[in-house]
Amino acid sequence: MKRELHAVLSVRLFTDQKIFGPGIAELLHRVDEHHSLRAAAQSMEMSYSKAWTITKNAEEGLGVKLLTSTTGGKGGGGATLSEEARQFLEAYDRCYEKLCAYGDSLLAEEFAFYQRRSSNDA
Amino acid sequence: MKRELHAVLSVRLFTDQKIFGPGIAELLHRVDEHHSLRAAAQSMEMSYSKAWTITKNAEEGLGVKLLTSTTGGKGGGGATLSEEARQFLEAYDRCYEKLCAYGDSLLAEEFAFYQRRSSNDA
Repeated sequence: MKRELHAVLSVRLFTDQKIFGPGIAELLHRVDEHHSLRAAAQSMEMSYSKAWTITKNAEEGLGVKLLTSTTGGKGGGGATLSEEARQFLEAYDRCYEKLCAYGDSLLAEEFAFYQRRSSNDA
Repeated sequence: MKRELHAVLSVRLFTDQKIFGPGIAELLHRVDEHHSLRAAAQSMEMSYSKAWTITKNAEEGLGVKLLTSTTGGKGGGGATLSEEARQFLEAYDRCYEKLCAYGDSLLAEEFAFYQRRSSNDA
């Protein structure tokens, strides 16, 4: 049987505590799409309170405001990404993509012995 | 306040299913140290049944035997890593180390804007 290996990476950023990872990154992308934290949370089946908490934790950890309220207050109006959030998210996504590309090439190199054997089994 | 970022990566390997990740890697290292699956599991506060299941899943997914029983049977005697397990684990560890080193350099590069600002805040 041919068994093609692929790697799935996850990247978490820490200062003295965890401040950024796949969850908040996905949430920010969805805020950008839905212009609302509540709608963003809903679209990924996350409770609004959890979305609010991970956003607050990331903001405190980073020391930057990630969301800008558009109209209404907490839970009411919309939200957009702050300029800092956009910059941070883009840097995170670029790191992730580059790491995945490197991961693919490493896998091909380091696990060549395994891929060879699996294809011999075919 | 100076906020130094660092990244924590996790690497999971898949074929059509998840077959290898931080849990089984840690378990295999501990089998190598303790010469027993039961002692290895215990040392990382994992139940023996879970350790047995993730080992079996990885063996089936990879199509290789990872553990070699030394004396006694399942749950009884000791266990050592098969040659294939050692080869796979070494390749996994090398990939992980190289990805972490690359992650550190990416972080310094992609988040330079953030590190600069944090040190200005100090």
